[in-house]
Amino acid sequence: MTIMENQQTIYAVIMAGGVGSRFWPRSREKNPKQLLEIIGEGTMIQNTVKRLHGFVDEKNVFIVTNKLQKNAIIKQLPNVPVENIIVEPVGRNTAPCIGLAALFVERLDPKGIMIVLPADHLIANEPEFIRVLQTASQVAHITAGLVTIGIHPTHPETGYGYIQAKDKSEETQPVNITGVFEVKTFAEKPNYAMAVTFLESGDFFWNSGMFIWRVDTILHEIQRSLPELHGQLVNLRPSIGTSLFEQNLEIAYGMMRGISIDYGVMEKALRVYVVKGDFGWNDLGSWDEVYRMSKKDEDGNHSYGKVISVNSKNTYVHTSDKLIATVGVEDIIVINTPDAILVCKKGASQDVKEIVDHLKRKQMNEYL
Amino acid sequence: MTIMENQQTIYAVIMAGGVGSRFWPRSREKNPKQLLEIIGEGTMIQNTVKRLHGFVDEKNVFIVTNKLQKNAIIKQLPNVPVENIIVEPVGRNTAPCIGLAALFVERLDPKGIMIVLPADHLIANEPEFIRVLQTASQVAHITAGLVTIGIHPTHPETGYGYIQAKDKSEETQPVNITGVFEVKTFAEKPNYAMAVTFLESGDFFWNSGMFIWRVDTILHEIQRSLPELHGQLVNLRPSIGTSLFEQNLEIAYGMMRGISIDYGVMEKALRVYVVKGDFGWNDLGSWDEVYRMSKKDEDGNHSYGKVISVNSKNTYVHTSDKLIATVGVEDIIVINTPDAILVCKKGASQDVKEIVDHLKRKQMNEYL
Repeated sequence: MTIMENQQTIYAVIMAGGVGSRFWPRSREKNPKQLLEIIGEGTMIQNTVKRLHGFVDEKNVFIVTNKLQKNAIIKQLPNVPVENIIVEPVGRNTAPCIGLAALFVERLDPKGIMIVLPADHLIANEPEFIRVLQTASQVAHITAGLVTIGIHPTHPETGYGYIQAKDKSEETQPVNITGVFEVKTFAEKPNYAMAVTFLESGDFFWNSGMFIWRVDTILHEIQRSLPELHGQLVNLRPSIGTSLFEQNLEIAYGMMRGISIDYGVMEKALRVYVVKGDFGWNDLGSWDEVYRMSKKDEDGNHSYGKVISVNSKNTYVHTSDKLIATVGVEDIIVINTPDAILVCKKGASQDVKEIVDHLKRKQMNEYL
Repeated sequence: MTIMENQQTIYAVIMAGGVGSRFWPRSREKNPKQLLEIIGEGTMIQNTVKRLHGFVDEKNVFIVTNKLQKNAIIKQLPNVPVENIIVEPVGRNTAPCIGLAALFVERLDPKGIMIVLPADHLIANEPEFIRVLQTASQVAHITAGLVTIGIHPTHPETGYGYIQAKDKSEETQPVNITGVFEVKTFAEKPNYAMAVTFLESGDFFWNSGMFIWRVDTILHEIQRSLPELHGQLVNLRPSIGTSLFEQNLEIAYGMMRGISIDYGVMEKALRVYVVKGDFGWNDLGSWDEVYRMSKKDEDGNHSYGKVISVNSKNTYVHTSDKLIATVGVEDIIVINTPDAILVCKKGASQDVKEIVDHLKRKQMNEYL
């Protein structure tokens, strides 16, 4: 069985509301990580849409974002219909975001397959990625369950959540497709020892934050697990596409509780599946990760813009304008933007968000 | 005996032609180290003149520099007469520079005391510095010898030349003033083992590059040791102060051989004295040295301009405009100027000049 036989239309919902504070100073509220060229050509969101080509039509791509980023997204994705750009008045975590997008998809196709994707991940093997999404779409269609992509873990990473599959040998497996498992549990970011245990057990995957389901399935599951949110969402239905929508949305979001789809829905749902993904996935969670994924010269230096390197090794240097010269440094990340410069030790780039916290505390808003 | 009893006029010649390439990117050809505020208030050359107040009148201060720096010097030192700013057409090392300045001093006072000082040194104890200069002036006046200041060494520094005094117990000592010795020899920058030996011997001083002599003495010694240079210099005498001077100087310098006063004159002279100086001298030879001499917070960080420091230690961060944030770095020097940024490991700042060499090779003149 293939998707083509079903003639099932696929919709993509791309969550693009983040601020990417770990990517300061390049990532800013108005121009965050997903709108930047971080690795290679094209911005992260452009590449996210582009890699769906042939599988999801751009007119079936929805973007959930915020007011600050809307115009930049319209500019970067000229083939995505403007009415598909959904603007949240405030961020309320992923459950309201996904529920809202589901309402939009529902209007086009009440039983359509909805693929939810973060806007800022890197995927090396795109054909394999599409193959996995096709499988996930089949599973979502057949089972009316919630499907997630579990990344085959390569090391005991403590920066990701994990998904545990039910024992693969059990006969309970309801879908007879290689690499598809029922989910036993979702696990938060583990400590190192726990991550090692996860890796050794063989039935844990990294939680990619990608979801695949039928739009009626997710709305039903939201109704079951988050009835209050469901009520707030369905109240919005009549005004979608009208001049009243923006105001109604603002009121609804004003009352909504922020909650994640993982915690609010996935963990309580009955039919949850994980499709194993092994397509060179990277969530580019920090400048360290960007360094690892970037091209380097023989000294391990990556440079972008005017850079002179003297006796320096394993550096990541990115300059938007001025010349940067490094002398005798190792394992250093230097990012120069039009108004701010970051100098960060490799391994410490998770702490870049502390800079952003500091800027917020001191109300240095021009740097946010 | 004091200087006052002699009514001897003191002239200062400040050598300010250097480019300070170790201080790139702040130090540039048109705005080098001596014209910058490196430590505290006032530029280095302003502080060099200022610390002579009460000892050398500003109208008796001469500056030897080059075309690129002339206007900035006039601006920074409004009380030094413009006719005392001597512009060398090209740099020919210290012997021609000092010889040329001697001609200017000679016109005012053929037997005047001439103090030659670098423009870019730091001196902590200024009264003691003046006391030492007074002593040196006395010695120069009485002996008609060449006098230099030897800095009491505090560690086996390999970055300075050394001056060895004759055995202090010898009865040959001709000037009966505490802290004044005949010079036995000048030594080039030693290796570390040699520097330790120098330090342990007790009769070696750091060569400060400061000289004190009567103007007739130095001209006579140049005549004796560098007759060719002396001939070229005396040919210039008649045109000083006339419209012909600039052209004559250009022709003279075109033919001159570059040679240092140490090698060309001091080492060959008969009556050479060293006055011991212990006044918190520092030649600020590198950004490392600047860090050592700068104020730091409790984490050992020095910052100038908009700087945010997260988990960083022992950094020197200077920004002319943009915000600089450091995260998790130690022993790092960051200098941000309007067009270039340096990121340098502490201990490697001697290699900053390699950046300048690279810029010259690549003809990136806008950064020189």
